[in-house]
Amino acid sequence: MGADGTESGVRTNQHDDTNTVAGTGRRPTLADVAERAGVSLKTASRVMNGERYVAEQTRERVLGVADELGFRLNPMASLLKRGVVPGVVAFITGDLANPFYSVMAKGVEQEVRGLGLQLTIASSDEDPDAEAVLVDQLALSRVRGIILTSTLTSHAAFVDVQERGVPIVFVDRPPSGMDADAFLLDNYGGTRAAVEHLLAAGHRRIAYVGDYARLHPQRERQRAFGDAMEAAGVTDWRGLVREGAHDAESAAETVKALLADDPDVTAVFSSNNRITTGVLHAMAEVAPDLALVGFDDFDLADLLGVTTVSYDPAEIGRQAARALLAREGRRVDDPQTWVLPTRLVARGSGERAPRTRAS
Amino acid sequence: MGADGTESGVRTNQHDDTNTVAGTGRRPTLADVAERAGVSLKTASRVMNGERYVAEQTRERVLGVADELGFRLNPMASLLKRGVVPGVVAFITGDLANPFYSVMAKGVEQEVRGLGLQLTIASSDEDPDAEAVLVDQLALSRVRGIILTSTLTSHAAFVDVQERGVPIVFVDRPPSGMDADAFLLDNYGGTRAAVEHLLAAGHRRIAYVGDYARLHPQRERQRAFGDAMEAAGVTDWRGLVREGAHDAESAAETVKALLADDPDVTAVFSSNNRITTGVLHAMAEVAPDLALVGFDDFDLADLLGVTTVSYDPAEIGRQAARALLAREGRRVDDPQTWVLPTRLVARGSGERAPRTRAS
Repeated sequence: MGADGTESGVRTNQHDDTNTVAGTGRRPTLADVAERAGVSLKTASRVMNGERYVAEQTRERVLGVADELGFRLNPMASLLKRGVVPGVVAFITGDLANPFYSVMAKGVEQEVRGLGLQLTIASSDEDPDAEAVLVDQLALSRVRGIILTSTLTSHAAFVDVQERGVPIVFVDRPPSGMDADAFLLDNYGGTRAAVEHLLAAGHRRIAYVGDYARLHPQRERQRAFGDAMEAAGVTDWRGLVREGAHDAESAAETVKALLADDPDVTAVFSSNNRITTGVLHAMAEVAPDLALVGFDDFDLADLLGVTTVSYDPAEIGRQAARALLAREGRRVDDPQTWVLPTRLVARGSGERAPRTRAS
Repeated sequence: MGADGTESGVRTNQHDDTNTVAGTGRRPTLADVAERAGVSLKTASRVMNGERYVAEQTRERVLGVADELGFRLNPMASLLKRGVVPGVVAFITGDLANPFYSVMAKGVEQEVRGLGLQLTIASSDEDPDAEAVLVDQLALSRVRGIILTSTLTSHAAFVDVQERGVPIVFVDRPPSGMDADAFLLDNYGGTRAAVEHLLAAGHRRIAYVGDYARLHPQRERQRAFGDAMEAAGVTDWRGLVREGAHDAESAAETVKALLADDPDVTAVFSSNNRITTGVLHAMAEVAPDLALVGFDDFDLADLLGVTTVSYDPAEIGRQAARALLAREGRRVDDPQTWVLPTRLVARGSGERAPRTRAS
């Protein structure tokens, strides 16, 4: 019998799509076939993929059950043929719990799964050592490629990985010291538009609340903030910059301390989704009239009336996956950098006029 | 030289913690050492872990640079010793973009990383076939164990995987047809308390908006809803049940259709975080006075004043990881089911008195 099962007469597309497992309303799975036939999942998989080394009696039973249930192989299952594990694409995230990365991973998954490949996700937890080890391990385990949110400042050590045939595509943060494709956000343009928006509403004492300054997107956003303030003639902006807030709690504390220090602050630009959450908590507690524009959209921003610098992180994931799979097996001698534009979505918090809270 | 590098005189703990890479304020990494020494990451790793097959000159250069930078091996890096890839624990999620799973994954990561192991995450995207294939592949690739959010209704086919020495621990949804540990939520108790809370505020026409009814937690929540309504003498609750809303958009549409059909509905119980988001959108559009209690906490529920059935998903992840690693190599002849309690957090939306919207 051929690997595609033609000689057995079992065709994966001969059954009616409306077949469901009795009483559940869902399509039968390989596991249902295995269970009903009284064999292991592996055996059922072997039979359905026309592999050898299965007893004829077992084969017949499994095929009979599959027929009866109307089981159809799906593209992923058929990749298990002869025990060949399909290609795995790896995504290294900086923080498992940050929706920015989760939505990006979902975009990667859409592309990867569409090609019958698997996605595996690992987190560096923003630890440079952990990242270096992960990249090395993934290369050793022969993944098809790595989509990397990097927390390292130099990637010269990864040239070797790419030369061993494991392409790396950078997302959110660009490579340094190696040639690789990168898919970034328009951090500078998005932030500059946000700060100009607050300036246009009449604000001058605008604070910048940022994450770790060592991260490239944060540096770009901070630079855009300074440039926008300078361009508007607000030259004493350096005293309004607060960095190093990596979660909502520390951002809320930062804002409360800032407002206590400087009662003339009337607006805040928050440099990512987590920080925006913290600023909103601080505002609810001590400064409901503060104007706010945040980088990154987030669930329920519309209901809370928060003006954001918006874009779709899933789009970065999709584009990066496509580029990665296109690169396979080819040297990266023409690395591309692709910048996703952002747009300002006005929802109320960024359009408030300045109101001084000085008591 | 020993594998721990003792004979070379390089001790990983002899350096001052305050060492940082010039100009960056961060601790030096293995990649910094590799770059400065002009060797690959793999070579730097080999040297730092005292492996053989590295030229003496290279070894000396790498060790010199490491000394100079004050580089310290971390526990994960030292697991790379002699090319041994450390143990990998797998977590199979149902939806990469749902924060419920992301926070749970973060809990798993804390435990796994604390033991010097790696975490890899894959998603079934709630597809039973994809889940069966993922489990089989992970077992083939010799992971240390699998933490599984299952969308299958029978797991008899996975008995084989566990017997091949790859333990499986179930989270959120229990096993069926196999013996395995399970870490679940108190779906019944949490929902019953929520519905009783709405009944106590005077509501009778309470709608239930749920996700896929085939998922175990959803069935339990729906059952608790019915029991609470019956116990309160509201026997016509079946007409108030809407299921199959798997995202915020479909939940919002469901609620709008429900309210159009039945203008006497004064309250909604939403059966998970995504559905709550949808209900909130529908409320903002057509029914701001609706009372609401949602299962699952979510970011900013406090600022939006949403009463929820609350618990910490990270705790399920931590407990599951501990159980998985404790099971390793042992037969599961005494499977445990552990149920995380929930608590009702009143924030306003669940305490509103009934107001009929009949026009």
